[in-house]
Amino acid sequence: MSKQLDASAQGVYLITVTPFTDSGALDLASTDRMVDFCLEKGVTGLTVLGIMGEATKLTMEESRTYVKQVLARVNGKIPVVVGASAPGFAPMKELTDSVMDLGASGVMVAPPSTLRTDDQIVSYFQMVGETLGPQVPWCLQDHPVSTGVQMTANVILRILKNSPTCVMLKHEDWPGLAKLTAYRAASDKGEVKRFSILCGNGGGLFLPEELTRGADGAMTGFAYPEMMVDVVAAHARGDRERAHDLFDAYLPLAKYEQQAGVGLAVRKFLFQERGVIASDFVRKPGPKLSAQDVADIRFLVKRQEKRLRELG
Amino acid sequence: MSKQLDASAQGVYLITVTPFTDSGALDLASTDRMVDFCLEKGVTGLTVLGIMGEATKLTMEESRTYVKQVLARVNGKIPVVVGASAPGFAPMKELTDSVMDLGASGVMVAPPSTLRTDDQIVSYFQMVGETLGPQVPWCLQDHPVSTGVQMTANVILRILKNSPTCVMLKHEDWPGLAKLTAYRAASDKGEVKRFSILCGNGGGLFLPEELTRGADGAMTGFAYPEMMVDVVAAHARGDRERAHDLFDAYLPLAKYEQQAGVGLAVRKFLFQERGVIASDFVRKPGPKLSAQDVADIRFLVKRQEKRLRELG
Amino acid sequence: MSKQLDASAQGVYLITVTPFTDSGALDLASTDRMVDFCLEKGVTGLTVLGIMGEATKLTMEESRTYVKQVLARVNGKIPVVVGASAPGFAPMKELTDSVMDLGASGVMVAPPSTLRTDDQIVSYFQMVGETLGPQVPWCLQDHPVSTGVQMTANVILRILKNSPTCVMLKHEDWPGLAKLTAYRAASDKGEVKRFSILCGNGGGLFLPEELTRGADGAMTGFAYPEMMVDVVAAHARGDRERAHDLFDAYLPLAKYEQQAGVGLAVRKFLFQERGVIASDFVRKPGPKLSAQDVADIRFLVKRQEKRLRELG
Amino acid sequence: MSKQLDASAQGVYLITVTPFTDSGALDLASTDRMVDFCLEKGVTGLTVLGIMGEATKLTMEESRTYVKQVLARVNGKIPVVVGASAPGFAPMKELTDSVMDLGASGVMVAPPSTLRTDDQIVSYFQMVGETLGPQVPWCLQDHPVSTGVQMTANVILRILKNSPTCVMLKHEDWPGLAKLTAYRAASDKGEVKRFSILCGNGGGLFLPEELTRGADGAMTGFAYPEMMVDVVAAHARGDRERAHDLFDAYLPLAKYEQQAGVGLAVRKFLFQERGVIASDFVRKPGPKLSAQDVADIRFLVKRQEKRLRELG
Repeated sequence: MSKQLDASAQGVYLITVTPFTDSGALDLASTDRMVDFCLEKGVTGLTVLGIMGEATKLTMEESRTYVKQVLARVNGKIPVVVGASAPGFAPMKELTDSVMDLGASGVMVAPPSTLRTDDQIVSYFQMVGETLGPQVPWCLQDHPVSTGVQMTANVILRILKNSPTCVMLKHEDWPGLAKLTAYRAASDKGEVKRFSILCGNGGGLFLPEELTRGADGAMTGFAYPEMMVDVVAAHARGDRERAHDLFDAYLPLAKYEQQAGVGLAVRKFLFQERGVIASDFVRKPGPKLSAQDVADIRFLVKRQEKRLRELG
Repeated sequence: MSKQLDASAQGVYLITVTPFTDSGALDLASTDRMVDFCLEKGVTGLTVLGIMGEATKLTMEESRTYVKQVLARVNGKIPVVVGASAPGFAPMKELTDSVMDLGASGVMVAPPSTLRTDDQIVSYFQMVGETLGPQVPWCLQDHPVSTGVQMTANVILRILKNSPTCVMLKHEDWPGLAKLTAYRAASDKGEVKRFSILCGNGGGLFLPEELTRGADGAMTGFAYPEMMVDVVAAHARGDRERAHDLFDAYLPLAKYEQQAGVGLAVRKFLFQERGVIASDFVRKPGPKLSAQDVADIRFLVKRQEKRLRELG
Repeated sequence: MSKQLDASAQGVYLITVTPFTDSGALDLASTDRMVDFCLEKGVTGLTVLGIMGEATKLTMEESRTYVKQVLARVNGKIPVVVGASAPGFAPMKELTDSVMDLGASGVMVAPPSTLRTDDQIVSYFQMVGETLGPQVPWCLQDHPVSTGVQMTANVILRILKNSPTCVMLKHEDWPGLAKLTAYRAASDKGEVKRFSILCGNGGGLFLPEELTRGADGAMTGFAYPEMMVDVVAAHARGDRERAHDLFDAYLPLAKYEQQAGVGLAVRKFLFQERGVIASDFVRKPGPKLSAQDVADIRFLVKRQEKRLRELG
Repeated sequence: MSKQLDASAQGVYLITVTPFTDSGALDLASTDRMVDFCLEKGVTGLTVLGIMGEATKLTMEESRTYVKQVLARVNGKIPVVVGASAPGFAPMKELTDSVMDLGASGVMVAPPSTLRTDDQIVSYFQMVGETLGPQVPWCLQDHPVSTGVQMTANVILRILKNSPTCVMLKHEDWPGLAKLTAYRAASDKGEVKRFSILCGNGGGLFLPEELTRGADGAMTGFAYPEMMVDVVAAHARGDRERAHDLFDAYLPLAKYEQQAGVGLAVRKFLFQERGVIASDFVRKPGPKLSAQDVADIRFLVKRQEKRLRELG
């Protein structure tokens, strides 16, 4: 069983892909390798069944099998957060209970795309907190690009005040630097408890700037999690220039991997190239890489390797 | 087991509510009474697990229990269609196989709100047809107000040509009269097979006009299904004035029941008032009626009863 | 010069169509006839350059010419409100100053579709109030179906508190009955000044219910403004049944006229049939009626006339 | 008078900002300096009155004054394209005629956000072509992030086939690399005339990749237009590595400048720092930089300068 999620979380929580075989079945051997890879690279947590984990394309049975496999392989070494966003509260509760029983550390919930007004949003997450119950720590996901729901810093703070079990924010509003500043000011002034903020903005494209504003780390996907681990570490020891140097070396490829739609195919391709997963299969409906895309990626990888050698 | 859905479907397929007890549990006794009520009123089919059936608020287990109960009570007398829209194909297949095994007549699928271009839509439904397989007849739902997806008549016809198992259209585009005309012209000219068109436009608010344009009937929810049954019957025997007279008598209440958001609460309240279901409980997040809403409804019911007496 | 708009406004403010000739030019003779027709039917105000007035399809020059013609013909008998929604404040100010100079009574402003959060909305209308200045009374338009902006009753009340010159609400949220109740409770308790509420919900499809909740009247378009005038009058003298009887007689046609897209063509066709405007020309891009649409309309008009004779 | 826009356009068309004084008035002296700056840096065209030019915040009079000033200063040296998107065709024609009279080279039109289906889009741009007339060359803007309108490569090609005066595509779909490949394949095969493709994707964030796919250059805004000029030049002479080296040096700042919302403030700040414009004033509603934003920008500028020195 993994450690319960709490407000002290920091570092890099990697959003995992869900590995399939070339015929589209769950690939549990690759799942194990991916967990090992993440642990070796120094990630401090995992987040599974997110959008980039193709969560909605899994059957309920597959979801459970996958989470179980990840938890078994992680074996309590780092926390594992499970995406539990659902259109209704009964299925949200059903999934949450199931994964918490399996040993998950907490769940992550994004707002449904129908929410518009501040009061609708605050009231929705009040019900989320009640649905999950007092034993389940959770992470609030603020990702307007995918949800269409815009939550101000004030609304986020109201949600955190309402729900003692909400211990983490996955911050991916864009632009969001001013919001980070507002969150830290609010907890410094004691208006709200200190909470963990992990960033996923554009797949980590603003990570160094976000750390400067007080973020605790990253929660996002990228085929080179070591970049995020190293950037967070450099920042933590006060070496801001090094943090940016490392980040900039990976930025051209990170940018390419963050393309909407085709991005997941890029990520899986890179994981396959790196020997982590056996197949870059993406379930339908999903993107496919063209020969030109692959040529682009290989070109960028080569430049990235050269740049990293120069940096030392 | 109910009869398989086919292109000859006509009349009124009622979108059922899902009855809960006052504490929010599935109410199977009320479910039985609702089925009996529908059969008595002359509906020719049932559609369950639609949006107005609070499908997304049920656990997978509850969904199965509810569908099973409905099918048992219907006992093959009329076809039962099950909503199977899902964000991914694996869960769509999982639910479909499960309900077809239980004896459902077919499933209904609406496009996910992310689809925009004609090609995206056509390609999505090609995959739907492949996912459901050659044994499962299905109904295409065209409801832009809830999905945000606008499908032209041409796109709908392309989908029908691609998928031999798509035998029915739930037409609820608004305005949609010109589309009905286009569909019938296309099948008359032999460009596409003849398919069943049942309308749900604004909860049936355009039913008489839609019948005139060639619709086969209605598929929607309303606390007075007998209105739709009688309107379809009057139209079928060529009595257009009578069809409109009946329709107009119910229109003020139908309009009130079709209010976005609060509408489901109105419908459940009316079903409760009519003795069909035991409780008007709506699961969260959901609307609640105020005392003034109830006063409005009672006033409109009284006027409706008076008008019906005058009509004879 | 027409009387300045103020919070005592009530009755029926008709949203006018903009009459064109068959070749698409502004038709000023028909404009005069339309003004005369409205005055004869007893409307208490006019609203021009709204969405249904094809405002965005006019050049700046045409807008001024049209407003000038309407104001000259009205000749101060009733207030004239001008739609002044604009993507930026400089053009909003430019248009407002121009029409107020011509003698308009006030302007109407809807939120731009980019607004999402409560604070964005409140702050936008603070800037609207500042832009219009202390001499220009204005009407706030709450029409989420067309703008995509959802404003809670609280947000509306915050706007009214911030802006002393905001004297009227064009209420067309749907469902919106609970909001009306909230507005009247707030002004009864003295939390906000009493303001005029005119309803446009679905083109007046909820007028009797809205009057019961405290609305002051209607601001919408319909080819039979006398219906709204008579319903408001019956309600005002306490004859609720008569108000509903009248309303119900027109409801089938009103519903047909309120179809999104094709509705404006229906309205112009009916105004032409009634001899008010010379041509039912709608500027591109715009709807056209088919022969079947025209047959539908004529059928509904005949039934409406019969029903009105029965009512006496 | 500037040269008419034609399909041979290439290089960098800079989207200009509109300079204001600190009190918010048009700043014509800064406008002249900005034009001079662009010419010195080697841009091959200018695009004015785009979204980032705060076009919607100008009065009609200000728009004309600004365009006139730019055209006078450019004095025919390079083409000037004017944004002419408008909600209706009459104002689109009014603005177009006005700026073409002043000597503009052509106009740019984006689809209104209400368009959804392929046919709606194609039909809209057919009307655009007819409205502009046979003498006005135009550029089609494909920017789904701001318009919400998704146009497939096929739809774009249908528009180009329909309208001989459409000579340029401003490509800013994201991801859009596959679309570029499709466009060039179509003109290579002779299915459509060869047209100019200038990219604005994410403010040029994919410029090197887009050039590799056959784009003719960039049309976007960035405070360092010399980057785009140099990247296009390096690519043109076949030095792909140099193109990427230059691009990568600017990427961290470019990324910061492309933040939605705050981006325009960043750009104006940088233009002010570089001595191009006198004030970084942005008209309401618009973003403001915080002290921390400014610190971020200065940090990134310093790193960029260092990197450029290293590159030589």
